[in-house]
Amino acid sequence: MQAINLAEKLEQFSDFYQPRTVGEFNGHDLMVVKAKGPFVWHKHDETDDLFIVLKGRLEIHLRDRTVSLGPGELFVVPRGVEHCPVAEEEAHILLIEPRDTPNTGDAETAAKRQVI
Amino acid sequence: MQAINLAEKLEQFSDFYQPRTVGEFNGHDLMVVKAKGPFVWHKHDETDDLFIVLKGRLEIHLRDRTVSLGPGELFVVPRGVEHCPVAEEEAHILLIEPRDTPNTGDAETAAKRQVI
Repeated sequence: MQAINLAEKLEQFSDFYQPRTVGEFNGHDLMVVKAKGPFVWHKHDETDDLFIVLKGRLEIHLRDRTVSLGPGELFVVPRGVEHCPVAEEEAHILLIEPRDTPNTGDAETAAKRQVI
Repeated sequence: MQAINLAEKLEQFSDFYQPRTVGEFNGHDLMVVKAKGPFVWHKHDETDDLFIVLKGRLEIHLRDRTVSLGPGELFVVPRGVEHCPVAEEEAHILLIEPRDTPNTGDAETAAKRQVI
């Protein structure tokens, strides 16, 4: 039960697309992640996917459009919708998903849960 | 399905402690709220309460301590824990709670759901 400073958490690591869990909320992980370059196309059939951009820009490619997000902007990818996040330059994201949601949509290729 | 700019949403109203729903995520409302002065002591027995400060400072008084939050900081009030948010100066908050959670902890005194 303490305040969580997102920028301080983001200073603790430098790898991309490896989310760190910084808190929990109603069965969801609150995660910070650094993005750079393209991630992979994937979907989550069981959950929406909440992206809040803290720094930089993130483009979320969908099959029929691209949503571009800057700091202070958020986007919810509805469950079942294929998406591919892409960051041309390094971007910092707050990501909220149910605990143990595979970030790639596939447990075999997903990043391991890391709590900081 | 579009990007949500939180600052633009916050420009659309000026009253305090009247959350506006700007999106939905896994049965939760994503809300922006302007805070100034003290809110009321309350608790939510069925849900955690996620506060993310966007602008200004918010103090979340608990019975045994006070948590002070600035921009880029978040705090989760666990379910069942009494709390009273206080903002000395105007503060802007992103608040995430299950849809129809009464903001005062009591349906009779709660702000009505307003979607913008």
